[in-house]
Amino acid sequence: MSFDPANLRYNAAGLIPVIAQDETTGEVLMMAWMNQDALRQTIESGRVTYWSRSRQAFWIKGESSGNTQALSDLRIDCDRDCLLVVVRQIGPACHTNRRSCFYTAVRDTQEVELLTAES
Amino acid sequence: MSFDPANLRYNAAGLIPVIAQDETTGEVLMMAWMNQDALRQTIESGRVTYWSRSRQAFWIKGESSGNTQALSDLRIDCDRDCLLVVVRQIGPACHTNRRSCFYTAVRDTQEVELLTAES
Repeated sequence: MSFDPANLRYNAAGLIPVIAQDETTGEVLMMAWMNQDALRQTIESGRVTYWSRSRQAFWIKGESSGNTQALSDLRIDCDRDCLLVVVRQIGPACHTNRRSCFYTAVRDTQEVELLTAES
Repeated sequence: MSFDPANLRYNAAGLIPVIAQDETTGEVLMMAWMNQDALRQTIESGRVTYWSRSRQAFWIKGESSGNTQALSDLRIDCDRDCLLVVVRQIGPACHTNRRSCFYTAVRDTQEVELLTAES
């Protein structure tokens, strides 16, 4: 079946959640959102491009920081309302300079930081 | 810092997106939603419990199918608006009987099924 970005289930704001996973390590790096145009741009450019809800603008990952995400594989879930992008991540994915945004664990009712910022 | 489920950022419907990752393989299995009470139940019971948006009810994963998710680790992202649950998945995670919900890939503009249903 031919893939059409229009043929996905976007929320009321026209957005779909996107999980980014590191191609090499399998690590879950971050979760962000795309609209239909961001997804089209991602596919055409091979550079993962989200939609920034706070700025209401395209967010070409790494455009200012250099910490880009090259699209390696794109996956759709069973309900067609969530995407998984498998990426080649350059540098840290998180704006805190950590490899992954999921650096805080809950263990024995305490929050524990698993990753430190890269220098 | 002590963890408090109230100290997360839920959306207007009181929900937070949750990514489930297989503890052993690192595979991203599914994405679903929790409210504050579902998160508390998950932590207390050790069984991953989502909030079903379609049924507007708690969804103890695997309660009817037997394909349970035991909570192995809980992670919070930098913005505190997304969770990652690392799980011991029994059986397929997807309602289609596939291991993961992300079984469809987009390759050369075509949708390709990567996983088949388990019997």
